[in-house]
Amino acid sequence: MEQIAIAQFGMGPIGVESIRLAAQMPWARIVGAVDIDPAKIGRSLTELTGIESLAGARIYGSFEELWSHVQPPVVLHTAGSKAASSIEQITPIVQRGVNVASTCEELLYPKLRAADAAARIDVLARQTGSRIVGTGVNPGFVMDVLPVCMTGVSRQVSRISAQRVVNASTRRMPLQKKIGSGMNPDVFRQLFTEGKAGHAGFRESVALIAHCMGWVLDEVTETCDPVVARHDIQTQHFRVERGLTCGLHQQCVGKMNGEVKIDLDLKMYLDADNPHDAVQIAGDPPLDVLVRGGVAGDHATVAALINVVPRLLQAPAGMRLMTELSVPAWAGRSAGASS
Amino acid sequence: MEQIAIAQFGMGPIGVESIRLAAQMPWARIVGAVDIDPAKIGRSLTELTGIESLAGARIYGSFEELWSHVQPPVVLHTAGSKAASSIEQITPIVQRGVNVASTCEELLYPKLRAADAAARIDVLARQTGSRIVGTGVNPGFVMDVLPVCMTGVSRQVSRISAQRVVNASTRRMPLQKKIGSGMNPDVFRQLFTEGKAGHAGFRESVALIAHCMGWVLDEVTETCDPVVARHDIQTQHFRVERGLTCGLHQQCVGKMNGEVKIDLDLKMYLDADNPHDAVQIAGDPPLDVLVRGGVAGDHATVAALINVVPRLLQAPAGMRLMTELSVPAWAGRSAGASS
Repeated sequence: MEQIAIAQFGMGPIGVESIRLAAQMPWARIVGAVDIDPAKIGRSLTELTGIESLAGARIYGSFEELWSHVQPPVVLHTAGSKAASSIEQITPIVQRGVNVASTCEELLYPKLRAADAAARIDVLARQTGSRIVGTGVNPGFVMDVLPVCMTGVSRQVSRISAQRVVNASTRRMPLQKKIGSGMNPDVFRQLFTEGKAGHAGFRESVALIAHCMGWVLDEVTETCDPVVARHDIQTQHFRVERGLTCGLHQQCVGKMNGEVKIDLDLKMYLDADNPHDAVQIAGDPPLDVLVRGGVAGDHATVAALINVVPRLLQAPAGMRLMTELSVPAWAGRSAGASS
Repeated sequence: MEQIAIAQFGMGPIGVESIRLAAQMPWARIVGAVDIDPAKIGRSLTELTGIESLAGARIYGSFEELWSHVQPPVVLHTAGSKAASSIEQITPIVQRGVNVASTCEELLYPKLRAADAAARIDVLARQTGSRIVGTGVNPGFVMDVLPVCMTGVSRQVSRISAQRVVNASTRRMPLQKKIGSGMNPDVFRQLFTEGKAGHAGFRESVALIAHCMGWVLDEVTETCDPVVARHDIQTQHFRVERGLTCGLHQQCVGKMNGEVKIDLDLKMYLDADNPHDAVQIAGDPPLDVLVRGGVAGDHATVAALINVVPRLLQAPAGMRLMTELSVPAWAGRSAGASS
C-alpha cells in the first residue's frame, strides 16, 4: 500500500489527537507539523504525542518552514473555528497545491460567512489542483450530512429536523468550558451575543442542508440559552453550583416563505440525561432516525477528519463540501477501498 | 434550469412508478421508454402513466429503436435483478455513451456474481464516457450505504450489523408474492435453494460493506427460512392460512479469519409487528442507529433511482458503486444543488 504523507497544522489537543489516530492508519505517514507556539516549535512529534515512530517529524513555526523540509500532499488543519482566518491560514498551503482537510466549523459551508474569501480560495485551489473540505462530527455529520444522506430515499422532503443531546460531563475540559460551565447565566448570554460562547458552525449546518435540498432560505434564526444547574455538579474539571450555567441549549431555524424548513436543536450540558442524536424528515416517506447514545464528539471528530482524506483525494480540485465527496466511510484499513 | 432528457428501460410497475416520480422533477424530461412487451410497444407514455404531458413520448421495442428517435443522456433501468442479464441489456446503451441508473439488485456490487461482465462494461463505459450505478432502498441504502455512511465518524470498526423488519401487508402484490405468501413452507425453502425466491442482492450488500471497510471476507453464508402464519391472514392480494408461508427471514453473514465482521438480518412478512431498520457499528465509538417505522421500500426505491441521477452525472466514467458517488440527497428541487 502506497502511503500518503501528511502534515498536521495546529498542535492543540485536537491536533495531537489527530496525529495519534492518523498514525494508526496503514496508508498514512505523518511527516511534520505546524504551530505558532514558540514552546512547541522545533520539538519532535514523539515528544508531543508519545509515538516513538514520529521521532523524525518536527514542529515548524510556519507552513513555509515545514515545506522547505518535507512536501506532503495533505495537511490536516485544526487551528480555528472561523472561516475567514482559517482560509488565511491555509492559503499558503493551497498555493503549493496541497490538499487540506479541516475541522474549522465554518469551513463546512464557507461561503455563508466568508463569501469572498471562499470564492478566492476556491479559484486558487482549482488553479493549483488542491482540494479543501471542512468536516467533523457536528458540524460535519450528525446534524447535517446524516440528515441529507437520509433524504437519498425521499420522494418528497418538506422539512428536516434534528436534535442532539450531549452529556458534557463525559467530555473534555475545553468543551465543558465552551458550554459555559460555572458561569453566571447572564454573562453566558452576553458572551453568546458577542459570538464568544456557544456551539460554532450551527448556521453552517442549516446552510449545508438548505443547499443540498435546493431551498433558498429567507430567514435563519439562531438562539442560545444557558442551561442552569438544578443542583451542585462536580465533574473532573469543573464545580458548578446550583443556579449557575451547566451548559447550553442552542437552536437554529431556517424558514422559506415564512415556513420552517430546517430546525436544529442542540443541548450540551453537564449530567444530561439520555444523550442521543435524532433526525426527522417530513415528507414521503417520513423518516424518523435515532442514534441511541449519540455520536461521541471528541473521539469522533478526529475520525471524521482522518476518514475524509482518501475521499478528498478523489474529488475534483476546489473548495469542496462534505456532501460533494463520496459517501463517508471508515478509512482504517485501506485508503483505496472506496476507489 | 437546464433539463436532463431521460428514457425509461423496463415498463413494469417500478418502471411506471419511476416515470411518474421523474416527471415531478423540475430538472428531468422523460423522452421515451423501452419494453419488450408487444402490447406496450408503440404506445405513448401518457397511456401507461396517466401523465398528460408525456403524450409525445413513446415506448420502443429496443434501445436502438428509441435512439433513432431520441438521444437522452440518461436511462433508468428497471428490468431485472441479475447482474449478468442487466449488463447485457445495458451494453447497447453504454456503447452510445449514455449513463445508466439501475434498480438491478446485483448491480449494487456487480463483480460479486458477474466479475467478467462487470469488468467488460466498466472498460466500455470508460471508453464511451458513460457512468453506471446500481441503487435502491435495499439493497442500495438501509442495509449497506447507511451503515457505511455511519462509519465516517468511526475511529475503529470491528463489526457491522443491520436488521430490517418489513410489514409486507402494507406492500404491493409482487412483494407479497416474492416473499412466498400462501406457499407451502417446504416449497418456499426449495425455491430459495434454486435461487427463485427470497430477497435479491443480499450478498451484494455484504460485499459492498466489506469493500468499503477494506475487509476481505473468506466466508459468506446466506440462509432463508419461511415465516409461517400463526393465524389466517387476509391482505388486499393474498389469503394465507395458518401453517402456510407468510413471509421470509433471510440472513447473510460475512466472516474474516473465522470472525463475524458483517451480519445482516431481514424479515419481511405479512402482519409483521414493529417494522424498522437498525444498524449497529461495533467499534470506537460504538454506534446504534434505529429508523423507527423503517424506510418504506416500494415508494422509496424509485426515489433512490431518480435522486441518484444528478450525482451519477458528476461521477467519473465507469461502472460505479453507490458509495463512490457523492452523499445521497433528495433531488426534488434542483439537480444542481450538490454541485
